[in-house]
Amino acid sequence: MATTKKTIILFSGDFDRVMAALIVANGAAAMGDDVTIFCTFWGLNILRREKVAAAAGAGGGKSFLQKAFGRMMPKGTKRLGLSRMNFAGAGEPLMRKVMRDRNAMSLEELFASAREQGVKFVACTLSMDILGFTKEELVDGVEFAGVAAYLGEADEANVNLFI
Amino acid sequence: MATTKKTIILFSGDFDRVMAALIVANGAAAMGDDVTIFCTFWGLNILRREKVAAAAGAGGGKSFLQKAFGRMMPKGTKRLGLSRMNFAGAGEPLMRKVMRDRNAMSLEELFASAREQGVKFVACTLSMDILGFTKEELVDGVEFAGVAAYLGEADEANVNLFI
Amino acid sequence: MATTKKTIILFSGDFDRVMAALIVANGAAAMGDDVTIFCTFWGLNILRREKVAAAAGAGGGKSFLQKAFGRMMPKGTKRLGLSRMNFAGAGEPLMRKVMRDRNAMSLEELFASAREQGVKFVACTLSMDILGFTKEELVDGVEFAGVAAYLGEADEANVNLFI
Repeated sequence: MATTKKTIILFSGDFDRVMAALIVANGAAAMGDDVTIFCTFWGLNILRREKVAAAAGAGGGKSFLQKAFGRMMPKGTKRLGLSRMNFAGAGEPLMRKVMRDRNAMSLEELFASAREQGVKFVACTLSMDILGFTKEELVDGVEFAGVAAYLGEADEANVNLFI
Repeated sequence: MATTKKTIILFSGDFDRVMAALIVANGAAAMGDDVTIFCTFWGLNILRREKVAAAAGAGGGKSFLQKAFGRMMPKGTKRLGLSRMNFAGAGEPLMRKVMRDRNAMSLEELFASAREQGVKFVACTLSMDILGFTKEELVDGVEFAGVAAYLGEADEANVNLFI
Repeated sequence: MATTKKTIILFSGDFDRVMAALIVANGAAAMGDDVTIFCTFWGLNILRREKVAAAAGAGGGKSFLQKAFGRMMPKGTKRLGLSRMNFAGAGEPLMRKVMRDRNAMSLEELFASAREQGVKFVACTLSMDILGFTKEELVDGVEFAGVAAYLGEADEANVNLFI
């Protein structure tokens, strides 16, 4: 079977939707496909470092509102809420516990596995600009691009999802 | 026109999103297309039987959390909420009433029609495992598969949606 | 590069998701692609006129429920809420302010730009019928069609998103 290409626009930052995106991406990468995940808006949260060096732009040029957005939104995959049955934040730890009990891969393991398998993570620069995220605040190995780059890849792909 | 293939990942269990998925699926099937709906996460709810025989695995190997998830989530298409304007559950009956008044097909009719037209419903086995759903709890005629099967079908399809 | 075709089903009426759809549509149109946005359900809200002439069907044949839906849902792009961090309506003005501060295009500008670039907006007639929207209530230049028309275009397109 010829290698094919897949793209995912990860717009959502919900735990369960991020998990669905990473499961599809890992599965496709395991089958030899090229996979690119374009993280926009709330999907950018999974790329944020948990801790940012004080010098490295954790505040500098940001407006008050951007600082507020930055503080309120989760950093990385560890504090995402569920899109449903979130129960004021209790749903996600429950879902995590069920997954551990069933020996399913955790969200962090799915993210690490995707990166190891060569899934390309792209941070949408327009969303970064609006939300006030700097490159230093995102994890290493991420690419930065806009909608034109997405469309170029989507034109070459045979499956393009918006999650 | 050559027959083509469509796939839908039905991730959502919202009444309105399920309806959108079933309208696209029925339309494509009516035009002679092969259609597969992969039900994952909350989308699995539409495949649940309203009543499960006590003997048939309605509890047995489930953890406390899985039983709780199972009890709190809707069974079948009859008690799904709206993704918007749900008004603590009042939105869905209102939407249903409007649809009856306009002689639109109900969600149950859309589901039955899709099955009659040969739309294939696949239950995501990983989601079943996490949420603790057994095969006996789902309606007859459903297939069981994972992400590799989805990707295999998506590679053959010309329209692949994530809903 | 050959011209290609893109379709988007815009199901959501959330400010941020509408923005994502319009950014993709504008980008593709700028690259010379044919783009069609099928507005269904809450996505129809972006096509509603802010003010409808009293004579032009702003009430006539509608049921009580349809009038109620019509009154409660936003008209046009100016009062859409965020899908996340909406803070009882405060999130959207905050997001708009950040976008102004960063000189990003507003939602209204993105919508106007898409129309100027020839992006085709189609109102889903089934959704219009259910929600009780008449043609007079929608902005000029919109086409009206159902799922068969969508599928016909999607069959010709190489990227089909559901947002």
